[in-house]
Amino acid sequence: MATRENDLLRRKIYTVVFRSDTPSGKLFDIILLMLILLSIASVFMESVAKIRDAYGPYIVFAEWIFTGCFTLEYALRIYSSHKPFKYMFSFLGIIDLLAILPTYLSLLLTGTQYLVVIRAFRLLRVFRILKLNRFMSEGHILSNALKASLHKITVFVASVVTLVTIIGTLMYIIEGNASGFTSIPVSIYWAIVTITTVGYGDISPQSPLGQFLASILMVIGYGIIAVPTGIVSVEMARATEEAKAKCPSCQAAIHSIRDKFCSNCGKTLI
Amino acid sequence: MATRENDLLRRKIYTVVFRSDTPSGKLFDIILLMLILLSIASVFMESVAKIRDAYGPYIVFAEWIFTGCFTLEYALRIYSSHKPFKYMFSFLGIIDLLAILPTYLSLLLTGTQYLVVIRAFRLLRVFRILKLNRFMSEGHILSNALKASLHKITVFVASVVTLVTIIGTLMYIIEGNASGFTSIPVSIYWAIVTITTVGYGDISPQSPLGQFLASILMVIGYGIIAVPTGIVSVEMARATEEAKAKCPSCQAAIHSIRDKFCSNCGKTLI
Amino acid sequence: MATRENDLLRRKIYTVVFRSDTPSGKLFDIILLMLILLSIASVFMESVAKIRDAYGPYIVFAEWIFTGCFTLEYALRIYSSHKPFKYMFSFLGIIDLLAILPTYLSLLLTGTQYLVVIRAFRLLRVFRILKLNRFMSEGHILSNALKASLHKITVFVASVVTLVTIIGTLMYIIEGNASGFTSIPVSIYWAIVTITTVGYGDISPQSPLGQFLASILMVIGYGIIAVPTGIVSVEMARATEEAKAKCPSCQAAIHSIRDKFCSNCGKTLI
Amino acid sequence: MATRENDLLRRKIYTVVFRSDTPSGKLFDIILLMLILLSIASVFMESVAKIRDAYGPYIVFAEWIFTGCFTLEYALRIYSSHKPFKYMFSFLGIIDLLAILPTYLSLLLTGTQYLVVIRAFRLLRVFRILKLNRFMSEGHILSNALKASLHKITVFVASVVTLVTIIGTLMYIIEGNASGFTSIPVSIYWAIVTITTVGYGDISPQSPLGQFLASILMVIGYGIIAVPTGIVSVEMARATEEAKAKCPSCQAAIHSIRDKFCSNCGKTLI
Repeated sequence: MATRENDLLRRKIYTVVFRSDTPSGKLFDIILLMLILLSIASVFMESVAKIRDAYGPYIVFAEWIFTGCFTLEYALRIYSSHKPFKYMFSFLGIIDLLAILPTYLSLLLTGTQYLVVIRAFRLLRVFRILKLNRFMSEGHILSNALKASLHKITVFVASVVTLVTIIGTLMYIIEGNASGFTSIPVSIYWAIVTITTVGYGDISPQSPLGQFLASILMVIGYGIIAVPTGIVSVEMARATEEAKAKCPSCQAAIHSIRDKFCSNCGKTLI
Repeated sequence: MATRENDLLRRKIYTVVFRSDTPSGKLFDIILLMLILLSIASVFMESVAKIRDAYGPYIVFAEWIFTGCFTLEYALRIYSSHKPFKYMFSFLGIIDLLAILPTYLSLLLTGTQYLVVIRAFRLLRVFRILKLNRFMSEGHILSNALKASLHKITVFVASVVTLVTIIGTLMYIIEGNASGFTSIPVSIYWAIVTITTVGYGDISPQSPLGQFLASILMVIGYGIIAVPTGIVSVEMARATEEAKAKCPSCQAAIHSIRDKFCSNCGKTLI
Repeated sequence: MATRENDLLRRKIYTVVFRSDTPSGKLFDIILLMLILLSIASVFMESVAKIRDAYGPYIVFAEWIFTGCFTLEYALRIYSSHKPFKYMFSFLGIIDLLAILPTYLSLLLTGTQYLVVIRAFRLLRVFRILKLNRFMSEGHILSNALKASLHKITVFVASVVTLVTIIGTLMYIIEGNASGFTSIPVSIYWAIVTITTVGYGDISPQSPLGQFLASILMVIGYGIIAVPTGIVSVEMARATEEAKAKCPSCQAAIHSIRDKFCSNCGKTLI
Repeated sequence: MATRENDLLRRKIYTVVFRSDTPSGKLFDIILLMLILLSIASVFMESVAKIRDAYGPYIVFAEWIFTGCFTLEYALRIYSSHKPFKYMFSFLGIIDLLAILPTYLSLLLTGTQYLVVIRAFRLLRVFRILKLNRFMSEGHILSNALKASLHKITVFVASVVTLVTIIGTLMYIIEGNASGFTSIPVSIYWAIVTITTVGYGDISPQSPLGQFLASILMVIGYGIIAVPTGIVSVEMARATEEAKAKCPSCQAAIHSIRDKFCSNCGKTLI
């Protein structure tokens, strides 16, 4: 009998903590998001020297309150989940754990309390509250396009890394210590800063030859941005097309342009 | 009788201040645009110390003249409008009000006079004079494409904000005060400066680990620019296609590819 | 008789200076390009203090030699042209004149000799030597795409200018003189540096509010780069498609997708 | 008899050093890649002053070991290759030679030992181990798209170089030595830094006119990034389309959309 009551309680908790399509679940999610935002804000404030000096103890206290809440939430999630281990080792489950660990670790090591910003990942839950499906399908199109581009982008990144290594080394030989190119790794860092068009200017070439080589690197960097953009545009167009595809007989969405049968009614496609 | 004369006057004023397809309306709009440009120029000049010291009082005087003109114009618009409240709470009406308020506020608070640059928004009226429709339809295509991209871009921006928060905090832990990473908010500011490839260089990592993490952030920033570009390209192609679509029976423009009936003749589409 | 000989000479000169598809014309063009490159190189060298101090007089002498050659060439072009005035007021004719004027002006005003780099425009003649048509048609596709994008890009640029004006003024009010925001025009310059993701860092916000506003501006700048890219991609695709279109009956190239009749055989299209 | 044994040995070596689809060949390639990575890492470490002071002789010793291994590998490749000269003058063969030369040259000239980073190019062999074909075909699509864009991009780059030369010279005249624009080549370097949106900030305009001209250059640079992106997107779409094309009768891949006959079965296409 206790088991049945237990079961009922567990199911009730499950509805609240895991579902966002019920009134209580939605309320729970909104409160949770606010707590996450508040706790991130408190970490931000703790890092500002002036605020820490003035209100340090209060912030630490608030931080423990937040961590208490999140620990309770984590416990409830494990308790109410049908398959606790599956939840614990899922992406969201690991994030939930990582979001409370740093505060406890800060008892042993200083500095770790800032790592609670990993809670920011939990904010992505917000998409579950706002019309979930719409955003999930958009996110799906995005990640499909990126996955389909993966091979092309790997070739591209490998070429860029090689280029940056070679040019970084050449600049180290040409410029030397005087202009800030103190070692090959630093020169490669400079080459990355330049080819991505970030251009801090903390290190910059001074010799004519160095400036000439840097100009070439900039033009290359400016030009090749077109490559990933072109790749993603093409894949995005395909993924968007795919997302719109429907079975001509049952109107169910078709998952991929390469599908040969409708997964809903079994009709042959194409 | 007075009402009828009043009505006639009102309609005449309406033609001048609201319409840009009549000679008098066009002239009014051109004079208005010039006044706006002159008044913005005078604000610019007032902000330059040298010019302010030499001609300060004249500029302030000119500014009051401009504000007088615009106040009169605002009054005429309210007077001649058929539905004064609708105008007052429309986007353009609010801009028109905000464009005159700062000068009056400057009697109470110093510094507010610069806010009159909100008049710059009024310059967008220029599209009404130059072949209005052509530009409006282009603007329509642009805003349609952006609206259609909104969900995808929200997912994208949320991911970027999360990434920037996490990496900003890591850099605060790794680099610390010495390199200018004085607090987490400042580090996040640095992360935004870096991921958008702006790269001021006022804050830049000094430690090897920090430079390594910064390099990764740069490459991510350089790569993911492809994502919004791909999204907008695809939607722009669709919006352009849509803008060209015509009803096969009456040749009226079709508003959206998803329309099922022609809004002009009622014929079934697709 | 003298006229006929004259005519023959004129035609001969015309073949050499205006045509690049004859051996002598090609040779002339190649020598011309080399002279242009050498004269630009001499201007570059003159501007470097060390080289000027050592070889100043020689460089000035060489510059006069080059200018003499180009003046002779300009005279020959006018003499041999069928319609001298048409040539003189054509784009290339004006460039040819502007390319020799600065040297003569340098007798009156110092500093103007550097303006001879306008000769760089003349280097674009190189496309006439290298398989002209191929490049001209590619250039045609590019300029067609840009022309078709003009209205959309005007709307885009007008919006960006308005945004930059408003945010530049806000930053002037927020940051003030201390951070380098000395006047509204300078603040607008900073806003342009930021929104285009150039980011020199000579002026950068110091206050938290200023950094927050700057972050928003950066994200906007990073995001809206997608807009012109999307516009140009779509138009480029259309222009490329158009360049490939052929009349189904006579195979002549069709100039525009909107043509209703083939300009070669008169057949109805579409 | 010795020849046959020799032949067998040669074929065996060939299988190991040139093939990556056999177990021994794959193992060889993996060991090779690790040695390359280690040798590059040792060059990086040698360039860091602190590490060089502490472990200099050990690193030099390791470097000679690596070079010995690569020299042996190079000799084996020449020995086992069917056409040694074809290998020696192939792209990979030249890279293999350049990868060992710098160490030997360092006996004569200091500084050359850093050039061994040319070994980084050899890392691109990694694609041979990971499912070779998939990446090769993706690389093929990329390079096809870039080749097809070559003419358009040449026109684009030539225009940009001309623009940068003209504006660089104008800035030299406007700004002069005080702001760091010490010569025309340096000003052109600044113009490239600006138009590519890198923006180091080591040189930046100080005068109002210079800042105005710089703003225009930035906006141009920000806008025209759309041009190469548009070009590459269109060509990428075409190259992707082409890579998917198959002969309708024999299903063999079709090399180009412009092919008139299937290269496999001779069937007429289109």
